[in-house]
Amino acid sequence: MSLYRSVTDFRVEDVDWILDRAARIKAGEPSAQLPPRAVVGLAFLESSLRTRTGFAAAAIRLGATPVEVLGVRESAVSMPESVDDTLRTLAGYCDAVVARVGEHLVLPAGVQVPLVSGGDRGLVAEHPTQALIDLFALTRLAVPVGDQVVALCGDLRMRAARSLLLLLEAYQPRRLVLVTEPGLHEGLTVPEGLATLCEERTLGDIGDVDALYVVGIPHGALDEDGRTRLRVTSAHLDSLPPRARVYSPLPVIDEMERDALHHPRVRMFEQSDDGLYVRMATLELVLGLGAPA
Amino acid sequence: MSLYRSVTDFRVEDVDWILDRAARIKAGEPSAQLPPRAVVGLAFLESSLRTRTGFAAAAIRLGATPVEVLGVRESAVSMPESVDDTLRTLAGYCDAVVARVGEHLVLPAGVQVPLVSGGDRGLVAEHPTQALIDLFALTRLAVPVGDQVVALCGDLRMRAARSLLLLLEAYQPRRLVLVTEPGLHEGLTVPEGLATLCEERTLGDIGDVDALYVVGIPHGALDEDGRTRLRVTSAHLDSLPPRARVYSPLPVIDEMERDALHHPRVRMFEQSDDGLYVRMATLELVLGLGAPA
Amino acid sequence: MSLYRSVTDFRVEDVDWILDRAARIKAGEPSAQLPPRAVVGLAFLESSLRTRTGFAAAAIRLGATPVEVLGVRESAVSMPESVDDTLRTLAGYCDAVVARVGEHLVLPAGVQVPLVSGGDRGLVAEHPTQALIDLFALTRLAVPVGDQVVALCGDLRMRAARSLLLLLEAYQPRRLVLVTEPGLHEGLTVPEGLATLCEERTLGDIGDVDALYVVGIPHGALDEDGRTRLRVTSAHLDSLPPRARVYSPLPVIDEMERDALHHPRVRMFEQSDDGLYVRMATLELVLGLGAPA
Repeated sequence: MSLYRSVTDFRVEDVDWILDRAARIKAGEPSAQLPPRAVVGLAFLESSLRTRTGFAAAAIRLGATPVEVLGVRESAVSMPESVDDTLRTLAGYCDAVVARVGEHLVLPAGVQVPLVSGGDRGLVAEHPTQALIDLFALTRLAVPVGDQVVALCGDLRMRAARSLLLLLEAYQPRRLVLVTEPGLHEGLTVPEGLATLCEERTLGDIGDVDALYVVGIPHGALDEDGRTRLRVTSAHLDSLPPRARVYSPLPVIDEMERDALHHPRVRMFEQSDDGLYVRMATLELVLGLGAPA
Repeated sequence: MSLYRSVTDFRVEDVDWILDRAARIKAGEPSAQLPPRAVVGLAFLESSLRTRTGFAAAAIRLGATPVEVLGVRESAVSMPESVDDTLRTLAGYCDAVVARVGEHLVLPAGVQVPLVSGGDRGLVAEHPTQALIDLFALTRLAVPVGDQVVALCGDLRMRAARSLLLLLEAYQPRRLVLVTEPGLHEGLTVPEGLATLCEERTLGDIGDVDALYVVGIPHGALDEDGRTRLRVTSAHLDSLPPRARVYSPLPVIDEMERDALHHPRVRMFEQSDDGLYVRMATLELVLGLGAPA
Repeated sequence: MSLYRSVTDFRVEDVDWILDRAARIKAGEPSAQLPPRAVVGLAFLESSLRTRTGFAAAAIRLGATPVEVLGVRESAVSMPESVDDTLRTLAGYCDAVVARVGEHLVLPAGVQVPLVSGGDRGLVAEHPTQALIDLFALTRLAVPVGDQVVALCGDLRMRAARSLLLLLEAYQPRRLVLVTEPGLHEGLTVPEGLATLCEERTLGDIGDVDALYVVGIPHGALDEDGRTRLRVTSAHLDSLPPRARVYSPLPVIDEMERDALHHPRVRMFEQSDDGLYVRMATLELVLGLGAPA
């Protein structure tokens, strides 16, 4: 199995290993060393900041060097090359490939190295490594995930949210609070294992929340009234318990008021920074470096 | 001599060395180590997938790190910088440069490091490293190149085909079969040393061919009837001898029927993968690492 | 202090150290070794050739690997991410960041690593590392900077010129000659410490100049008559003393006549090449590797 498109392509023991390993790397434990002169391919046919540069840095910290493809080959004299052929070609030069291809990610025939999604598109779009980073953030709180009230605010159909919900199904927080709008969860099925833990609320009712996860709302997905109802303000953050932390896969454009971004509960950039360790651990795992059998 | 624009800028003994060296690297022999912290410049002012990422990976496998320039410097306040100045500047920071500049490649004044073409344009456009990869593929067949019937199908004016024909002139296959259309070889002169080996045929008459090389046909170079006559199908591939192999510099857009791509005779992606070793050997040669004096 | 936006963000002893260190590296002295697997972020949201590839190569020569961001994250479903968040995110993965962001560079909250300008914009736009390279070029002349007549020709408001004038204020050449046009220094205040050294002249009167620095003139900043008056010709260069050298931050588009570019006094590409050593020394300094306390 060398495709990691969904977060469910990681076994629960893999996820446990990644979380533990990321914490150890963050604490200063030496990371594995990739085979000398290893190459990690980064096929980002769609724009990406965090995932692309985060995996580039993770590869480098492991002793490898990234090679990027930021668009399909096009020229005046030929049609664009297919995504499959692009990935297959790049994979032939690399020890692993991380890809965001702008469509549902599949493993092209002949790819022999691990292929990790950097976020895909389609009806069951996911962003598995972002969700691993988000879950890692939850594990950094004082109380264990199983005792946390976790709130997700925004468009629950976004790929990072879908992956996180699948992870939370396995990790079972005490309660799952959804802050959203009609239309932002059309077609979304909350994973079965979360059904009994789950309730909808407004931002006015988050006083018991341990972790508020600001999902993001795509441009144009909601009218301004709806955006306003879901916009996180300093007052909302003040209503959280002191132990609470606010996370986001970023970027945050207008999903939070600008002055709320610097509220003492907000840990979005620490979460982003820790993404480096999670991506290092993920690369170690998919490359079979010390990961569970 | 530090410009490698044409495949004839490599001496025959250089080509022999590259082919032999690539085979050894593929077989697991350690590659040379570039000077510590070496830099290989990749100036690809035109889109490239295989050549750019292949040389990036080759540089890394040799212990170097690539630095890319993917367009000339432009800004709101200045005219585009010249190709010559772009190459000269980059070369000043690098141990070697591979370049695809969208025009006939020349060695700019002051460039002190090897400059290797990644495919150029113009009346005598070539793609020397692609042709080395193609010749390497031929050497992987069971019979030596000198005993092979080699067929080229498509637009023989394409730069990779021009370079390959020049190499085949030196390596003299048993027979050279050209499958093409009027208009796709206008202005093309088959190298003199191939004249007596050379004959034109259709795809219906390739039953004795050892290696079928699908050149590619530029978008718009041929009407649909012509494209259809040159489109390789599974039936054509079935008509080849069992020992035969099908190669291509890729990408293949519509030059082969989609289901023919997975025919057991097709080795295009293996050829692409082996390009890594040929590019490593080429970098070793131009940098004087163990190559013939 | 971890922002280096202006050349004045480097103390004079820092500049001295960089110049001396660059000369030693050029002479073959081993450079410092960055922490193993170090990452240098290159956020070039505007086009750059020399500064971007020069810092990439400098990082590699020091044992680090660059990670590039060449535009802000954009997608069909979200607004562009802010420059601040882009820099903050990248900085979280890196040991140092060099940035050209297309606006006045500020240190975003939370950035913990050195942030070096690769040229910014605005009313006090600067290009500090280019000016360090330019000053290094002056120190390569036979006579010390303090005994030189230095001439700047072109648009003195350009960011590299502003930074160089600030450096020259500290290094006090014997005389500063300005060759410019009304309109090309509107709003420019020559630094106070240069006032008594400074005089305006034409290109016809540079017979005592030791170093002629061709600043460049933005496209559209001047009518053709003005451009002609400031265009450096071979005749102008012949009028310089034999010891004189001609420098430029490059690119030179039409600020010099094409045949003047190869005049024996011209050292623009040597200056560009030496930029590698200055950038290596600059990275060493901002990372605290052996630099003055």
